[in-house]
Amino acid sequence: MNATSNEIPGTMRTSVLLGERSLTIEDRPVPTPAADEVLVRVAAVGVCGSDVHYFRHGRIGDFVVDGPLVLGHELGGTIVAVGEDVSPERIGNRVAIEPQRPCGKCHECRTGKYNLCPDMEFYATPPIDGAFCEYVTIQSIFAHDVPDEVSDEAAALLEPLSVAITSVRKAGIVPGSNVLIAGAGPIGIITAQTARAFGAAEVIVSDLVAERRERALKYGATRVLDPRSEDPKDLDVPIDAFIDASGAAPAVQSGIRAVRPAGSAVLVGLGNPEMTLPVEDIQNREITVTGIFRYTNTWPVAIQLVARGQVDLDSLVTGKFGLDEVEQALESDTDPDSLKSVVYPGR
Amino acid sequence: MNATSNEIPGTMRTSVLLGERSLTIEDRPVPTPAADEVLVRVAAVGVCGSDVHYFRHGRIGDFVVDGPLVLGHELGGTIVAVGEDVSPERIGNRVAIEPQRPCGKCHECRTGKYNLCPDMEFYATPPIDGAFCEYVTIQSIFAHDVPDEVSDEAAALLEPLSVAITSVRKAGIVPGSNVLIAGAGPIGIITAQTARAFGAAEVIVSDLVAERRERALKYGATRVLDPRSEDPKDLDVPIDAFIDASGAAPAVQSGIRAVRPAGSAVLVGLGNPEMTLPVEDIQNREITVTGIFRYTNTWPVAIQLVARGQVDLDSLVTGKFGLDEVEQALESDTDPDSLKSVVYPGR
Amino acid sequence: MNATSNEIPGTMRTSVLLGERSLTIEDRPVPTPAADEVLVRVAAVGVCGSDVHYFRHGRIGDFVVDGPLVLGHELGGTIVAVGEDVSPERIGNRVAIEPQRPCGKCHECRTGKYNLCPDMEFYATPPIDGAFCEYVTIQSIFAHDVPDEVSDEAAALLEPLSVAITSVRKAGIVPGSNVLIAGAGPIGIITAQTARAFGAAEVIVSDLVAERRERALKYGATRVLDPRSEDPKDLDVPIDAFIDASGAAPAVQSGIRAVRPAGSAVLVGLGNPEMTLPVEDIQNREITVTGIFRYTNTWPVAIQLVARGQVDLDSLVTGKFGLDEVEQALESDTDPDSLKSVVYPGR
Amino acid sequence: MNATSNEIPGTMRTSVLLGERSLTIEDRPVPTPAADEVLVRVAAVGVCGSDVHYFRHGRIGDFVVDGPLVLGHELGGTIVAVGEDVSPERIGNRVAIEPQRPCGKCHECRTGKYNLCPDMEFYATPPIDGAFCEYVTIQSIFAHDVPDEVSDEAAALLEPLSVAITSVRKAGIVPGSNVLIAGAGPIGIITAQTARAFGAAEVIVSDLVAERRERALKYGATRVLDPRSEDPKDLDVPIDAFIDASGAAPAVQSGIRAVRPAGSAVLVGLGNPEMTLPVEDIQNREITVTGIFRYTNTWPVAIQLVARGQVDLDSLVTGKFGLDEVEQALESDTDPDSLKSVVYPGR
Repeated sequence: MNATSNEIPGTMRTSVLLGERSLTIEDRPVPTPAADEVLVRVAAVGVCGSDVHYFRHGRIGDFVVDGPLVLGHELGGTIVAVGEDVSPERIGNRVAIEPQRPCGKCHECRTGKYNLCPDMEFYATPPIDGAFCEYVTIQSIFAHDVPDEVSDEAAALLEPLSVAITSVRKAGIVPGSNVLIAGAGPIGIITAQTARAFGAAEVIVSDLVAERRERALKYGATRVLDPRSEDPKDLDVPIDAFIDASGAAPAVQSGIRAVRPAGSAVLVGLGNPEMTLPVEDIQNREITVTGIFRYTNTWPVAIQLVARGQVDLDSLVTGKFGLDEVEQALESDTDPDSLKSVVYPGR
Repeated sequence: MNATSNEIPGTMRTSVLLGERSLTIEDRPVPTPAADEVLVRVAAVGVCGSDVHYFRHGRIGDFVVDGPLVLGHELGGTIVAVGEDVSPERIGNRVAIEPQRPCGKCHECRTGKYNLCPDMEFYATPPIDGAFCEYVTIQSIFAHDVPDEVSDEAAALLEPLSVAITSVRKAGIVPGSNVLIAGAGPIGIITAQTARAFGAAEVIVSDLVAERRERALKYGATRVLDPRSEDPKDLDVPIDAFIDASGAAPAVQSGIRAVRPAGSAVLVGLGNPEMTLPVEDIQNREITVTGIFRYTNTWPVAIQLVARGQVDLDSLVTGKFGLDEVEQALESDTDPDSLKSVVYPGR
Repeated sequence: MNATSNEIPGTMRTSVLLGERSLTIEDRPVPTPAADEVLVRVAAVGVCGSDVHYFRHGRIGDFVVDGPLVLGHELGGTIVAVGEDVSPERIGNRVAIEPQRPCGKCHECRTGKYNLCPDMEFYATPPIDGAFCEYVTIQSIFAHDVPDEVSDEAAALLEPLSVAITSVRKAGIVPGSNVLIAGAGPIGIITAQTARAFGAAEVIVSDLVAERRERALKYGATRVLDPRSEDPKDLDVPIDAFIDASGAAPAVQSGIRAVRPAGSAVLVGLGNPEMTLPVEDIQNREITVTGIFRYTNTWPVAIQLVARGQVDLDSLVTGKFGLDEVEQALESDTDPDSLKSVVYPGR
Repeated sequence: MNATSNEIPGTMRTSVLLGERSLTIEDRPVPTPAADEVLVRVAAVGVCGSDVHYFRHGRIGDFVVDGPLVLGHELGGTIVAVGEDVSPERIGNRVAIEPQRPCGKCHECRTGKYNLCPDMEFYATPPIDGAFCEYVTIQSIFAHDVPDEVSDEAAALLEPLSVAITSVRKAGIVPGSNVLIAGAGPIGIITAQTARAFGAAEVIVSDLVAERRERALKYGATRVLDPRSEDPKDLDVPIDAFIDASGAAPAVQSGIRAVRPAGSAVLVGLGNPEMTLPVEDIQNREITVTGIFRYTNTWPVAIQLVARGQVDLDSLVTGKFGLDEVEQALESDTDPDSLKSVVYPGR
């Protein structure tokens, strides 16, 4: 391991989830990077809905927290040490972390779909620890250098931006596309900005809440609609793609119904594991319905979009917390004005 | 119009649907081909489930029979006259008919998806008449020459084969693919043969009825399963694609659940306009779900598959009827041994 | 024909190419729109290199001017009359013209590649007349409404922008792509702007002339290079796509050599009909080399790019001419400061 | 390492290339499989043109033999030991070897193009040793089980079949495609069979030599042509794809000229590093020209094609040699009747 060793302590403060709604701070050894890894001092960690879900329910579907788990998988920081196969010149670089470790050998990895690797090790997904701590290790290839234009908070939020980029790619958004997005939460408005940056002509965002619709207009939406008073299938432009960022069955149903022939629908929001879908519409207009699971090869583009000012992540941060305030950070979503909370492990 | 005119009478016998379960034979004028059309003496017409549905219910979804309608859209015959822009050398050719007339100008037509043309005129779809009659006209480009190896019955059944080809294309079947097909009716077994001809490694057909499963093994299936005793997601091979030819919600659900990561599901069978689908599976494994609506550019391939003996259509014919037996032909599906009925307007 | 008839004269002034370097002004009848056509009063017509080539050499490859021909195929104007199948509400609309008429029936048309239609009728391509005249007809679907933000000149130059859009699409430019463009003439700099609008990270333009390199930096290029002093394969970023807008063999060769594994090269510039290409590079890095021939489905996107200010066409116009100055317009490319000339038939 | 250890000796006989046309037999230690590898007793090794080229010229392009090198990269055998991460149940399995080791981490690997990995370790490519020896190691994932229907020779020749599969995939061959193949050598006739198995309608093979044309007709060609008397662009069917397996510039040029609009040309044969290509044809008909470099994810399909009898590899073997006859095997291509030679290291 090459390191600016005088800077690295032997132990670090770590926020550990012990069980449902039970968090503690522990002192844990600072990890040592493997040969192809780097050691990163964590600067900022975004709070994701999945962190909140693990905190409150102790599980997400088949993923069960049955031992101590460190949450947090949206993060940026600074490389402070590198494994033996990594250039020491990387030490000191500010990076955003792509929080996954695929196997590199399976069918999915060999066909370029490493997000679907069955042997994936993913941050903050049992039993793999995440980033609510002072230091983490990650393969060098998944620590992406960020320029000065990208703040620590933005570096962390490149993770949800990667979700948005994946959605927009899957939806086939190209210059000239008209896209309907359901849900004006964090993913919805990051997706709206991303769709716009990918050249969408119209970006129409639907949400039940007026304030959220207003907010969407500041973040990429060309227009908004209230689904209680306007059916998206009555829109005066053909909808090439629908992206659901709400997880709500009525939104998914009306969204699919609004899509033009040969269009696509991408289901990003997590809701019920089963939903009633308009199969006749899917058949008669040959609509393609799919979902996304994480991302592949998104960080370089995400960095570009932020560095050029095409996607604004900084202003999404509505709450800032220290490592001993992780619980408050995880509970902050109960405030309707809250959009995105960030934990700063070094503060 | 160029014609071997001494052969063409002024009027022809036509089977006309007057309303629900009400058919009659009329004498109607033989149509005159427009400049880009040919006149075809109909040899054989397959009976499709949609014909049966119009006969019994007077409508399919938004398509309502509100005037006299000629059914039948699976057909082959012989060109007996041509419009002024068509080479007279085509007269005498045996042809299979692609029973559609897209506008050629709309967005869908300009992007190669002419099956989705909003101005489509399609045989036996109100208010466009079909083929239970002695003569029909069709654009020359949609009257496809067939070689001697393709019988009159097979020429007619190139239409459901075109459905199967479209499904297999949409499902992305390539050499080495493993495919699950639900439903061993006419479409299911034609699709099984087609999947095999496209190089599928395993073609697994599920059906509730033992006799139908047995039949599938003669028509392309490498194995069969009874969904009551075996869940397709427990199969020992990864399923690249699922094609539903049953229209049954349980089959669709278990089929989607069986698909491997990044695989596809194509819904061909017509069932309820809405179905409960396993959205979590679609999301977590990034499965692509879509449907098909008719076909584009399939007849040449269909002809090749039949001429080479890779798809057997002839032996699917279980009932043969004259023009005054159209009602019996439409009711023949009540016989469990019936697979495919054919009407011969010239007999 | 519906028309604001009091405005339409019986004859119009027309600039006719009689042979090599021989132009004349004729009075010709104003054409009558067919049922699916509109009549457009021409506002502005861009001068294209192909117009110049026909003027000087009387042919382009197999296309020979063997009778009087009206040149000009980049144009915008105002609809003044419509055929019987077109809504009269279109009269008065400012439009940009997509100057082609595909057959709508052939294999290419049916598969969405109408630019490759063998029966294409294309403006200013023998024997089809073009737009150096006061009025033209075009199918309604190919007269694209433009908003006020698009000037008459820009409406005309949507045609070369369509070439650029087609190139950028073929090259697979998506957000994050790095692209190398050879040649900083009109097509090169419109392509640079388009690549940037499609999200390219780096847009590197090479040109032998320093002034042209300087100009490229104002039109989308993120950097420029002089191919005599810098080999593009030594660039410090991987080149995802190379677009040649020079037609020069050395540029094409060094461009292909610079492309990363699995990248693409799109040859737009017209040069020698044969060129020596680095086949070993194409094979060992699996580079895809292709060309473009006109365009399909580009005008709506082109209008969006101009209306949003992502592509600037207005400032490219360096010469303005009346209908009796067509010869000067065609000769204006001999001035090294000339970039794009426009003819105004109504002045 | 798990092994049936009593079978594995400490040393093995190895044919080593010392320099141009200089081969020797050495005793070398049997290698030990790494954790993710298997040890394979080599049954049969095909002789490839690249082996011959290294033998005669000591280099291929930038790859220079500057130390002892073991040739041979087309092989099958039997697993006799496994690394610690591999199931011991694999011991005893007959396997075909995909002779490459990509890094699994680079941009190319992460996007599913592991054949283009810049850190690739490939058999018999300096400085990586190949298979003219008794035992080799390979990652477990690249040792593909073969059924009894696949002979030892066929297992070895799955490697050139993988080249053919890659070519046919790149050329976009689907049921109904018409394909032109130049060159009736081993790659040409394996490609012809593969094109046919992928559903090609017409497989037209061109070759200068009458005997080779005759042979092609036995291996998948539907017809053949002599390029000296027939120009492929005069064929009476549209050519969707051209695959060059000759490396001869005239064949490449006439092949590209023969391709229909929007068709493709795949250059497989190795010839001069530069060739004069018909750029005007590529542009005006938007032909896609590319090459292939090895393969990804082909062995499972290759095994299926052979096991089903769709591709015959066994009868291609015209020479059989022991390990001390490697030089004769490498020189056997001077016999015009020779098609494919195989070395049996265990004999």
